[in-house]
Amino acid sequence: MNFDAYLAERAERVDKALADYMPTLPAPAKELENAMRYSLFAGGKRLRPILALASAEAAGADPAVALPAACALEFIHTYSLIHDDLPAMDNDDWRRGKPTNHKVFGEAQAILAGDGLLTQAFHILATGPYPPSVGPEQILAAIAEIARAAGAEGMVGGQSADIRAQGKSGDPETLYYIHTHKTGALLKASVRVGALLAGASSSTLSSLTVYGEKLGLAFQIADDVLDSTGDPRLLGKPVKNDAGKQKLTYVTLYGLEKARAEAKRLAEEAEAALMELGPGAEPLRYLARFTVERNH
Amino acid sequence: MNFDAYLAERAERVDKALADYMPTLPAPAKELENAMRYSLFAGGKRLRPILALASAEAAGADPAVALPAACALEFIHTYSLIHDDLPAMDNDDWRRGKPTNHKVFGEAQAILAGDGLLTQAFHILATGPYPPSVGPEQILAAIAEIARAAGAEGMVGGQSADIRAQGKSGDPETLYYIHTHKTGALLKASVRVGALLAGASSSTLSSLTVYGEKLGLAFQIADDVLDSTGDPRLLGKPVKNDAGKQKLTYVTLYGLEKARAEAKRLAEEAEAALMELGPGAEPLRYLARFTVERNH
Repeated sequence: MNFDAYLAERAERVDKALADYMPTLPAPAKELENAMRYSLFAGGKRLRPILALASAEAAGADPAVALPAACALEFIHTYSLIHDDLPAMDNDDWRRGKPTNHKVFGEAQAILAGDGLLTQAFHILATGPYPPSVGPEQILAAIAEIARAAGAEGMVGGQSADIRAQGKSGDPETLYYIHTHKTGALLKASVRVGALLAGASSSTLSSLTVYGEKLGLAFQIADDVLDSTGDPRLLGKPVKNDAGKQKLTYVTLYGLEKARAEAKRLAEEAEAALMELGPGAEPLRYLARFTVERNH
Repeated sequence: MNFDAYLAERAERVDKALADYMPTLPAPAKELENAMRYSLFAGGKRLRPILALASAEAAGADPAVALPAACALEFIHTYSLIHDDLPAMDNDDWRRGKPTNHKVFGEAQAILAGDGLLTQAFHILATGPYPPSVGPEQILAAIAEIARAAGAEGMVGGQSADIRAQGKSGDPETLYYIHTHKTGALLKASVRVGALLAGASSSTLSSLTVYGEKLGLAFQIADDVLDSTGDPRLLGKPVKNDAGKQKLTYVTLYGLEKARAEAKRLAEEAEAALMELGPGAEPLRYLARFTVERNH
């Protein structure tokens, strides 16, 4: 398969759906709408939505079953970036080659834009529309999955631990908690909800869960490596950011060499977890490799 | 009925359920858990949960059908207070007689505590548990209702408009938008989801919707009046806060006399909307009066 064309086609499909899901607000809240749109359409890779669609496909369903969930995941991912960039959090000025949300709209509107995106994600999940093959119990399971992965027991907990670990001498357990929660939880959920909405068998769901776990961890280690060695023009943000902030990362704890090897190993394990799935899982195999080989 | 005893009994029931819904987090995220608990159990009146339970009762159901939604509404209300109090927003130091969340835990953890509470609300809604009378389609309708009321088209939009209106000469349309969205939307949703989960007939739902709209507006005008004339010891925060911040409120736009009369008129209209409902709506009738007669 032509993987670049696949990624481009899927990203375009997601972008169109995201635009439909973005509410138009009246004059008193126009600034909020502008702030939400600014980050939602800032050129993200749409990795989480593409994973959800590909996972539904790997489980033998039309990817359309996962389109609302795919968009909800991108609304949530975008909110998390806006809040993470805030001065009180990571205090970052650049994201995807553009000034961060609070640099353009101010802190108050940036906080609210994040709140609005997060809340809208659950409106999208609850209202769909879904193809008739998707039952309301499946939708509730998808909402529970995403809420748990995005919340205090998942991403928000990871971000809290990440902030608290800054400038301290870190231990491997804390680093593992941060990686599996801050980024890993939502990536794993992206894969799992695609399968849940596809009505996957429990053995397929298990395989895809292992895939999602390995991929999530590989992704975050690759991110740590990119921050240390990447090209700022491709990344759209300054590099060596983690070191400057004394962040606890895989690279700071184990060194660059070991980090690269670990990301590669995890991506291979992710791919191996798909062994019993057929050709419908081909995009997920590419996505595992892409996760560690990307340059942005 | 003994309304004070009713309020106390309901608040206690809600508090117990809230404690069950509050996740316990491992060491790396313990600070986040502490920050979430601090505001969730800071002595709120539990007005939104009590409205949801009372509305289910008014529609002829066991209030238990609305207990998860009632708790979700309080998680959302608590998150909104934490974010509204942030330095970048209203910059308030006191809330319910205690230092605000960011004063105790710092801005980063306060932002994340809000994010965690908001996300947990949707986990609660999706997972219940609900009595068997509540079907999955009803639960999805409740999630959609709450997400819309809490998000950019509701509360978050109202808060954004409120921030933007500060220090400017306000017009009645903007004030109406702020009141109906910032506070009104979630109060109205509290009443409506109780009815939705109770399986209310469309005529009962219509009556309760009018009740919720009038009550929401009455509540916010009463809040504006309390900020201007209330007792700071009872309120647990300084008064004349709105004037100091040049907030656009009903009192600043129309004066105290007219604001009091309008709140009273709206509460009466709310009560009148319940005309066709039986004795099960008695608590809602008391709640309408309580909304405008409360001193905190």
